[in-house]
Formats: sequence, structure tokens, C-alpha cells
Amino acid sequence: MLVGIDLGGTSIKAGLVDREGRILIQSSIDTKVGRDYRLIIKDMEKQIEKLLEDYGSGIDEIESIGIGAPGLMNYKSGHVIYCTNLFWNNVPLGVELQEYFKKPVYIENDATVAGLAESLFGSTKNVPNSVFITIGTGIGSGIIINNKVYSGSNFAGSELGHMIIGDNFYRCNCGNNGCLETFASATAMIKYAAHRLSEDKVKSVILDKADGKLENINAKIIFDAAKDGDQLGKETVDRMIKYLSIGLINVYNILDPDVIAIGGGVSKAGDFLIERLKEEVGKMFFTPNIKYGNIVLAQLGNEAGILGAAFLGMNM
Amino acid sequence: MLVGIDLGGTSIKAGLVDREGRILIQSSIDTKVGRDYRLIIKDMEKQIEKLLEDYGSGIDEIESIGIGAPGLMNYKSGHVIYCTNLFWNNVPLGVELQEYFKKPVYIENDATVAGLAESLFGSTKNVPNSVFITIGTGIGSGIIINNKVYSGSNFAGSELGHMIIGDNFYRCNCGNNGCLETFASATAMIKYAAHRLSEDKVKSVILDKADGKLENINAKIIFDAAKDGDQLGKETVDRMIKYLSIGLINVYNILDPDVIAIGGGVSKAGDFLIERLKEEVGKMFFTPNIKYGNIVLAQLGNEAGILGAAFLGMNM
Repeated sequence: MLVGIDLGGTSIKAGLVDREGRILIQSSIDTKVGRDYRLIIKDMEKQIEKLLEDYGSGIDEIESIGIGAPGLMNYKSGHVIYCTNLFWNNVPLGVELQEYFKKPVYIENDATVAGLAESLFGSTKNVPNSVFITIGTGIGSGIIINNKVYSGSNFAGSELGHMIIGDNFYRCNCGNNGCLETFASATAMIKYAAHRLSEDKVKSVILDKADGKLENINAKIIFDAAKDGDQLGKETVDRMIKYLSIGLINVYNILDPDVIAIGGGVSKAGDFLIERLKEEVGKMFFTPNIKYGNIVLAQLGNEAGILGAAFLGMNM
Repeated sequence: MLVGIDLGGTSIKAGLVDREGRILIQSSIDTKVGRDYRLIIKDMEKQIEKLLEDYGSGIDEIESIGIGAPGLMNYKSGHVIYCTNLFWNNVPLGVELQEYFKKPVYIENDATVAGLAESLFGSTKNVPNSVFITIGTGIGSGIIINNKVYSGSNFAGSELGHMIIGDNFYRCNCGNNGCLETFASATAMIKYAAHRLSEDKVKSVILDKADGKLENINAKIIFDAAKDGDQLGKETVDRMIKYLSIGLINVYNILDPDVIAIGGGVSKAGDFLIERLKEEVGKMFFTPNIKYGNIVLAQLGNEAGILGAAFLGMNM
């Protein structure tokens, strides 16, 4: 039996998972971010013990524990190098859990973990090379090469959201200008629509749907406005698709995977999004002599975090 | 003993190579591009037989034959999918040589082959993950992951030159706008300088050094002008370094290799280029908590083609 943990800025989701990828039992607790990291780790220990108790099982039956968290993870040393949401720098997350449970503990970036889950049980199953891209507040990604997680030599790879693809009107949190996530995330769509509404004073139903408040705008409002034929809504969606397609063509020209899977909040736009992306990316392919990998919707949703984390140990 | 062939639009270089990576004997013949592909392949067969004869050896002593060529290569089927310089589409290069010599024949993209050579015997030796970037007329690249060549699922990966990183004033040969090679190749530098000279009527010693003719401008003239303090020379070099640095930071954020090696004609700018790149890329790193991989000059020069091709069979 495996333990998978999805550590986020809001909640910690944990589950017991069997080797066929079934989540046997799971729970969610508040992260209560801002506390000393030791208190958060202590809560994770209790959460695992409670799951084992509720399932009528013991720690002896656990093969390994895996954790996915936002940020950069040193999977060799077990340290969280950097995690914005939790305000963590160089936190010995894996080390402490390993000492407590006396079991192998594996940590990885949360999008990488979700990419692994999709590769084992979801949208990118049965192919050796795949790229999972999760589009929400930011853009994260997980690269699978030869059926294994690839996150680089210094734990800093697989950050497709920070691929620079143009000049933008605002800078990325990372300090650079032009990162993919500043063009194609939900935040990017919201910032662009708000920018056009406030700077260019364009008229749009987006503002009405947001009760007249810029801060109420979200990606769903923008997609709905676009579907209703609203000009700014359409322009904002078109812009997102244009730049996301550039990001994807770069993925094809660099990694040429068998499948690209799109997940995260923005992927709720569903087949509409996938079809538009295929159309735009199709225009940019290098040669017609090749059948390039497919673009699909991710399948596992929120469970990808627990599932992928649980299987980190099997993938090393 | 191994045979390595570097097939280019101008010449075909071939060599016999031992398993320690020593080129025992080599020769170069004219490609005479434009002929029926069968004639070119026939010439390669004769070239190999002549090398064997001159070295006093026989085909029985050959383990495998490897070929690097510009373009996309189907290393599984042995077909050249696409090669602009040779005007080849779907040419059974590997198939025909294999039938003729009754030995395993491996084909790969020429930059990928050079990347393999650097990884085995040159600038990126002893590290598992590296990226070789050759900057000349265009930009090619070779990706090594876990000590193996990585060129994607459909033979279309590792084309870093076609990574889109901005908007440019001219389109790339691939049909897209904003490819790295339209910003950072020798051709890109020449086009930019010529564009500024003709469109913006700027004054520069570049035109003097080119005997007043735009078509005489080359990268060396531009680098020399920049060193002499010429304004357009400096701007052209700065622009190349700015965009090449964006390309490199994307490589770090996606692949996070142990080493990035720069080769090709533009790399003759030497340490000056490497130091400027390190400085610019250093400003864009995601976090100071990580020691990122180094940027170095490639070491093998023209021999990388024969050497890497020879070892393709050892790397599969």
C-alpha cells in the first residue's frame, strides 16, 4: 500500500492507494499556512496515522510515502527548495517524514506529480513521452520521458509556465517578462480583460457579469462572455489561445511528446479549448511529413495529486 | 570499428572511428546536391569502401554505420523524413546503406549527433543531461537525457532553433514568426544589421567593412564592429545575446540540464560570448537557491559530426 499527499497552500489532501492506483481512503485538512513548517509536518503525520487507523491498517503495510507540493523539490535530499504558497525555503519535508515513519519518502513538484498520475492512469497512459500542462492561477507542468518523471538536473526543469514567448504588459512573479503563464493562465486572462476595461475603456458584458467590479472577473466569466459573442471576451480568449499555442508548438519543437494533456481550471473550457488549440498549433507544425502527438484533456482532476504522489517511489 | 558520416549540403565527411572515439582515417567528398538521392548514396558507399581499403581493413571489422544529416530523421525506419539542404523528402538513406553493407545503420539529425559527440568526448562529458546548441546560418540542437540522445517521439524534437520567443520583423523559413534562429543565428544578425542600415539609414562601419555591400555582411564583421565600439555593431550583438539568453533561460526552465554547450560559427566569438550569456541568463534564473548548470563552449568542432554519427549505434 502507498501513501500519496497533495500539499497545497489551502489544504493537505492525503490518501492510501493500492498498487493498481485505487484510492482506498482519503482525507483533507487545512494547511493553515504561515505556521512553522514543523507544525504543518506534524499535522501531516497525524493525518496519515488517522487514515491508517480509519482503514484498519498499520504503518507496516506502507511501502512508501509520496508528496507533491507547489515549487521546486530536491527529491534527492528530501528538501523543499522553494515553495511560494507556503513561504517555505529549504524545508526538510521529506527528511522529517522519513525519520518519523521510517519509510521511504519521495517529494516532487505538484504538477510533475499530476503528470505522473496522468501517465500511469489517465490521459497519457501507454505512451513513453508526454507533457501535462495545468492551467489555473499559474501554469505548471509535468514532463514524462521514457515513462519516467523528468524534472531536470537541479530540480528546476519542467517549468513550462516560465517559458518566455513574447513581451507582455506586466511582469511575471518570477521577475521576467513574457512568461507563458502571464499570457495563458486564468490570471493572465483576468489581467488582460481588466487592463483593456480600465486602460482602453472598452465596453464589455464581462464587467456586467462581474457586478461592475474588476476584482470579480474570473476565467469562467470571460469564456461565457466569449461564447455570448462579446468582443472583449472573444479577444481575451483568442489571445490566450494564441499564446498557449505558441507554448505548445515550442513543446513540440523541443520535446515532441506522444501526447500533451491539458488540465487545471482553464481546461474546464473542455473540447472547445482543445479543438481551438489543435487548429492553431496545426498551422505552426514544422512539417506535414510527420504525425505529431495529440492534444487531449487531462482525465484525473483533483485525484491526480494523491495518485501521482503515491507512485513517486515506483517511478524513481 | 565504427563508421561515422557527416552528410551536409556541401560535403560528405566520413571516417573510421575506434571505440575510444579516435578518428582513424577520414575523407571528404562533394555532395553535389540536386542529384538523384541514389547517386549520393552510391557515392557514400564508395567513400566508405575507399576508407576501408586505405586503412587496410574490411567491412567485417565494422560494427555499425552512423549518419548525421540536417533535418528530421526517422531513426526507426532509416528514412530521412525531411532535409532542406538536400531537397530530400522521405529518402530511405539508412535502409539502402544497410542493404548494401549488411551492417546496422543509424541516422539522426546532425546537431543531435554533434550533441552526442560532445556528451561522449567533449564539453558535456560526464554529465547525464546536456543540451548542445550550434549557432551558424541557423540554430540546431542536440538534447542528451540520462546519457542518451533525445529527439522526441516523432523525430521532430530537439529543434530549439524553432522555439518561438517573440515577434520579429521577418518570418522564419519554417513559416512561423519569432523563432529563436531568426533572432540569434548568424543570419539573424546579418538580417538585423542590413535591415537597420537599409530601413533606418543608420551609419555604421559595418557597411565599410563589407565594402559598401549589404550582401557582404557576415557575423564576424558585426562582432568586429562591436569590438571597435560601432553603435550598430554593439546593438546587433546585444540583440543577439538578449534573445539567445531568452532561449537559454527557456532551456533551463524546461530541461534544466547539467551543461549547455554552444558550438557553430557564432561560437567563434568565444569567451566573450559565453561570459555575456552567463551574465544575461544569470539575471533571469528562477531562484537563487539553486546552482544551475554551466554554459560552455563546445570542444569538438567539425569532428563532432563524424564522431557522434559513429557512436549512434552505441547509444540506442
